[in-house]
Amino acid sequence: MTYCVALRLDRGLIFMSDTRTNAGVDNVSATRKMKTWAVTGERFITVLSAGNLATTQAVMSLLDERSLAPAERDPSILQAPTMFQVARLVGQTLREVIADSAADNGQQADSTFSGTLILGGQIAGQEPRLFLIYPEGNFIEAVDEAPFVQIGETKYGRPILVRVFDPSMSFEEAVKLLYVSMDSTIKANLSVGPPLDLQIYESDTLDPPKARRIPGDDPTFRAISNGWGDALRQAFDVLPDVDLND
Amino acid sequence: MTYCVALRLDRGLIFMSDTRTNAGVDNVSATRKMKTWAVTGERFITVLSAGNLATTQAVMSLLDERSLAPAERDPSILQAPTMFQVARLVGQTLREVIADSAADNGQQADSTFSGTLILGGQIAGQEPRLFLIYPEGNFIEAVDEAPFVQIGETKYGRPILVRVFDPSMSFEEAVKLLYVSMDSTIKANLSVGPPLDLQIYESDTLDPPKARRIPGDDPTFRAISNGWGDALRQAFDVLPDVDLND
Repeated sequence: MTYCVALRLDRGLIFMSDTRTNAGVDNVSATRKMKTWAVTGERFITVLSAGNLATTQAVMSLLDERSLAPAERDPSILQAPTMFQVARLVGQTLREVIADSAADNGQQADSTFSGTLILGGQIAGQEPRLFLIYPEGNFIEAVDEAPFVQIGETKYGRPILVRVFDPSMSFEEAVKLLYVSMDSTIKANLSVGPPLDLQIYESDTLDPPKARRIPGDDPTFRAISNGWGDALRQAFDVLPDVDLND
Repeated sequence: MTYCVALRLDRGLIFMSDTRTNAGVDNVSATRKMKTWAVTGERFITVLSAGNLATTQAVMSLLDERSLAPAERDPSILQAPTMFQVARLVGQTLREVIADSAADNGQQADSTFSGTLILGGQIAGQEPRLFLIYPEGNFIEAVDEAPFVQIGETKYGRPILVRVFDPSMSFEEAVKLLYVSMDSTIKANLSVGPPLDLQIYESDTLDPPKARRIPGDDPTFRAISNGWGDALRQAFDVLPDVDLND
């Protein structure tokens, strides 16, 4: 499993992913699930991935090769005119890779080749946009009513997002929110684990944003993880009491 | 879907279940998922159910008939000498009902006949015990390290249980905790909904405990549901700040 989440804030986009990858519980490793393409001043694109690692790595490599090898630059996510077209290209690539792995080749093929992606980015002169791309290659966009997207193990970390997310948040607050959401998931699902990858994109900078890696023993992450239990208990205490005699 | 949860406290057992049942999103109804058998002064048994409603209702009816019809009273959950034996009987009944529905009868049979149960209770002279019973009829018991059990849509409501549960809680606090856990689930999954059923069993009373039904507009439940968002935001604010310049 995996947990990746991205928020659409008034001031930009923010992405976080865990790094744990596993084939069974006895084959555990760490891998980066976040990849960025950028042309300074022109466009910024980040993709987060969950699902079969062979599938998602193949998708990333294909997107990479198409964006790097001049002869194959058409279609390229670095040339697509809008983020919608980028999403179509990424979705199509995902769908092709899954179909290719699952094609009848004398071996048993099943749904374990599946994958899901988060795509976010901005192209000069256009708004930043954020998408959730399904294995079938189609996708939905984060909108005002649903301004964040999650893939992988999404449930444990969702209630806090639903309750606390506010599009006017600062980046610092948003990182804190993602830490709490990620921590709730890590505490509940062994297949989600640190270090965490974080990327913050400020709207209209069109600059490859600094990618950060947060180790599991990062002091702030640890303080938030440890503090959240106490904070929750305090929050719980201020709730109205239940009267069992009524 | 469904959400049922039970806690093993120092002072007794506490059970909560939602009542929504649905076959698709266009066929929604309400049903009680909690059933109690009791012989005052001798034993108290409560079962909560999630999964296929035909399966779980059949299980309840079979347990009922076996406990009511004198000729069929052996084996009966009212005669089993220990809670462990009660769990075996309940598990066996569940497994039989699923196998019966899934047996080849010329129709297509699949896993939708499945069901999962929570069983809790006490027999005179023994400790109260709490079990989670799987479709295969086997089961696990709530222990000190894992003192609560959940079935159905378990993920959204789990982080708050993990963080706040304390076996020394009062029943009032425990009900508040279950309200919050249930509310997080109801907010996230349409197939979980009020009214809620609640049962509180105080250890060694061996008395059929009062079953309560909490309507969706219960003032305390509403106050806790509404207050939890604010309380969470306050809890969030007291967490250490993130410094993005380090």
